[in-house]
Amino acid sequence: MSELVPPALPHVVRLHAYTPGLQPAEPGWVKLNTNECPYPPSPRVVEAIRREVGEDGASLRLYPNPTSARLRAAVAELHGEGLQAGNVCIGNGSDDILNLLVRAFVGPAAADPEPGGGRPAAGAAAAAGFTLPSYSLYPVLVEIQQGRCQTIPFERSMRLPVDRIARSDARAFFLTSPNAPTGVAFSNAELERVLAGFRGLLVVDEAYAPFANEHAIPLLARHPNLVVVRTFSKAYALAGIRVGYALANPAIIDLLDRVRDSYNVNRLSQAAALAALSDQSYYDAIISRVKATRDRFVADCTQRRGWFTYPSAANFIFTEPRDSRGNTGPAVALSAFEFLRARKVLVRHFPSHALTAPFLRLSVGTDAEMRVLSESLDAWQSAPVPDV
Amino acid sequence: MSELVPPALPHVVRLHAYTPGLQPAEPGWVKLNTNECPYPPSPRVVEAIRREVGEDGASLRLYPNPTSARLRAAVAELHGEGLQAGNVCIGNGSDDILNLLVRAFVGPAAADPEPGGGRPAAGAAAAAGFTLPSYSLYPVLVEIQQGRCQTIPFERSMRLPVDRIARSDARAFFLTSPNAPTGVAFSNAELERVLAGFRGLLVVDEAYAPFANEHAIPLLARHPNLVVVRTFSKAYALAGIRVGYALANPAIIDLLDRVRDSYNVNRLSQAAALAALSDQSYYDAIISRVKATRDRFVADCTQRRGWFTYPSAANFIFTEPRDSRGNTGPAVALSAFEFLRARKVLVRHFPSHALTAPFLRLSVGTDAEMRVLSESLDAWQSAPVPDV
Repeated sequence: MSELVPPALPHVVRLHAYTPGLQPAEPGWVKLNTNECPYPPSPRVVEAIRREVGEDGASLRLYPNPTSARLRAAVAELHGEGLQAGNVCIGNGSDDILNLLVRAFVGPAAADPEPGGGRPAAGAAAAAGFTLPSYSLYPVLVEIQQGRCQTIPFERSMRLPVDRIARSDARAFFLTSPNAPTGVAFSNAELERVLAGFRGLLVVDEAYAPFANEHAIPLLARHPNLVVVRTFSKAYALAGIRVGYALANPAIIDLLDRVRDSYNVNRLSQAAALAALSDQSYYDAIISRVKATRDRFVADCTQRRGWFTYPSAANFIFTEPRDSRGNTGPAVALSAFEFLRARKVLVRHFPSHALTAPFLRLSVGTDAEMRVLSESLDAWQSAPVPDV
Repeated sequence: MSELVPPALPHVVRLHAYTPGLQPAEPGWVKLNTNECPYPPSPRVVEAIRREVGEDGASLRLYPNPTSARLRAAVAELHGEGLQAGNVCIGNGSDDILNLLVRAFVGPAAADPEPGGGRPAAGAAAAAGFTLPSYSLYPVLVEIQQGRCQTIPFERSMRLPVDRIARSDARAFFLTSPNAPTGVAFSNAELERVLAGFRGLLVVDEAYAPFANEHAIPLLARHPNLVVVRTFSKAYALAGIRVGYALANPAIIDLLDRVRDSYNVNRLSQAAALAALSDQSYYDAIISRVKATRDRFVADCTQRRGWFTYPSAANFIFTEPRDSRGNTGPAVALSAFEFLRARKVLVRHFPSHALTAPFLRLSVGTDAEMRVLSESLDAWQSAPVPDV
């Protein structure tokens, strides 16, 4: 039968879809694999959804506001820094925003840019750049768009390769800060050194910035080629409602709106996100709690276990497990991952890159969840290592 | 400032975004402009959303099921005809599905298909076809994708140009049935005549099929190049939650999943749509009511007013207003549109195509809303026509 299906575009046929972290359907897991917030969202979110649904759900029969207008205004007001609603685009999750950025700025080689002095050269113009390792969705989005990927590798230090990015001729460069899966944050001083040289669009994906000590939003006013991307999925405990946003120059927001689906954000998600923004003190409290748990667990890994662990400015920890014989490496990390999974503790292992394969990424859960994780890691460490 | 913004892809800079129907923020309108259902969704939808939110919204902190797995299974079961979950892809509204179809099958001219006998020729392969008039989102999606649009015009009869579509070398052909904005349905006999010749992907956009007497789903088993697209926005009274779906051969569904965002449908929308599917008797009742109101209003237009009106198999009516002097035409339709709008009755006028400009599209509302509409049209008809 399928040989009678008309051929899709060849690059789509060759494409490997993005693999999201496992979302187990059955209960009983200590789920520390997709960096969700361990605490529920603000009670105002629950109220706002109930209010939007009403007694009989009558408002659901109507299309949502096509621009998420109230949410744009509230986001601008939250961040201050002179931002207006025209600096904000709301997405169906920040993945939607990343996709819109790729669709507006990155294309097949045939899609040359308009002539313009000092701009990336025509041949290279369609490339999207990103560091490796980083969020593995970027290359998938670029490949769907038939763009060319330009990757700049990290060293094990995970220091930002500032000069290489500054010299990149990529049309758009995607930088996750704090980075995933390492948790290492890049400073505004480093970003400004990148921006001093880079002429493409610098997309700073700040999914985890609420857990860091600095963020790039103050740089927006001085850098019209900067886009900051945020999400409600992590710090706002709302991964289930799919809302993210871009902050940028209005000319960039206008371009995103041209390629955006008119009704990309549904009514309940708009209402929920708006209510979340109104309760910053609630979120300040849970973010502080997550950071305190994180810092205690980093100390547990580094001091008590002696495991190399990157300094984390995010809600997860990237650590290099060491077995009872003192060994590290991809097989050791995989062994720890599988040991944990057998105890229904789910973390993330990224085996496909040399710098990530010896590590595990542990989302920061509640203190109770982290106790289970710690005890399970103790049990793994004291288990006999099979001779290979 | 904006001259320092890096240049977007030239086709995006030139793009005109899709213009959705007006969604007034303030109350008091008789809103008959975007074909929403005038009745609320099933009470089970309200219950399901409340259950998903729970007491404290804790489930919202977790990502949704990435494939909307339960919803795929329920959709397949609803339609029967041998369909399985593997024949279903769920979208963030059916607009998301249409976009995925364009991204998988339609591309810039450089994107030639894999060689394959009897397939569309390489040069023409990237084109998407659609009729004119039809859903005005299609050309926008194709232009975002840098595809080529191949349009096949309707005559005033709105008969399906079967032979021209059957001979089309478009990579994918989008056909709205019942058509928008006319409401005219195409029979399965006509679709089979198209499918006997057409070798590309035939996408039958059945947003309004629940209001028609026939639908194309029984054809899926025999035609692996057929895709049927459905939505919860119209007959299920859930435009606000953004859920739609594709039914097709599993090989096509697999392609859509490769270009689909992993978490495109949020938790509350998955729960709401699943609950709606479980209450078909509720929806059968409101669909019957909408059809009865529609048929009465068509009779009012044709018999009492003597206005030419297409036979509608949808939840809207496409009628050609005639003023007190007996004139029709674009200016007459615009005059009626503006007269209604001044009375806070919102309908739709499509001035940009010769076959649509003399008409108004009236969404079927409640009987009370249709009375207000009818009285307003009476008042317009009896108002003196200004000499031009």
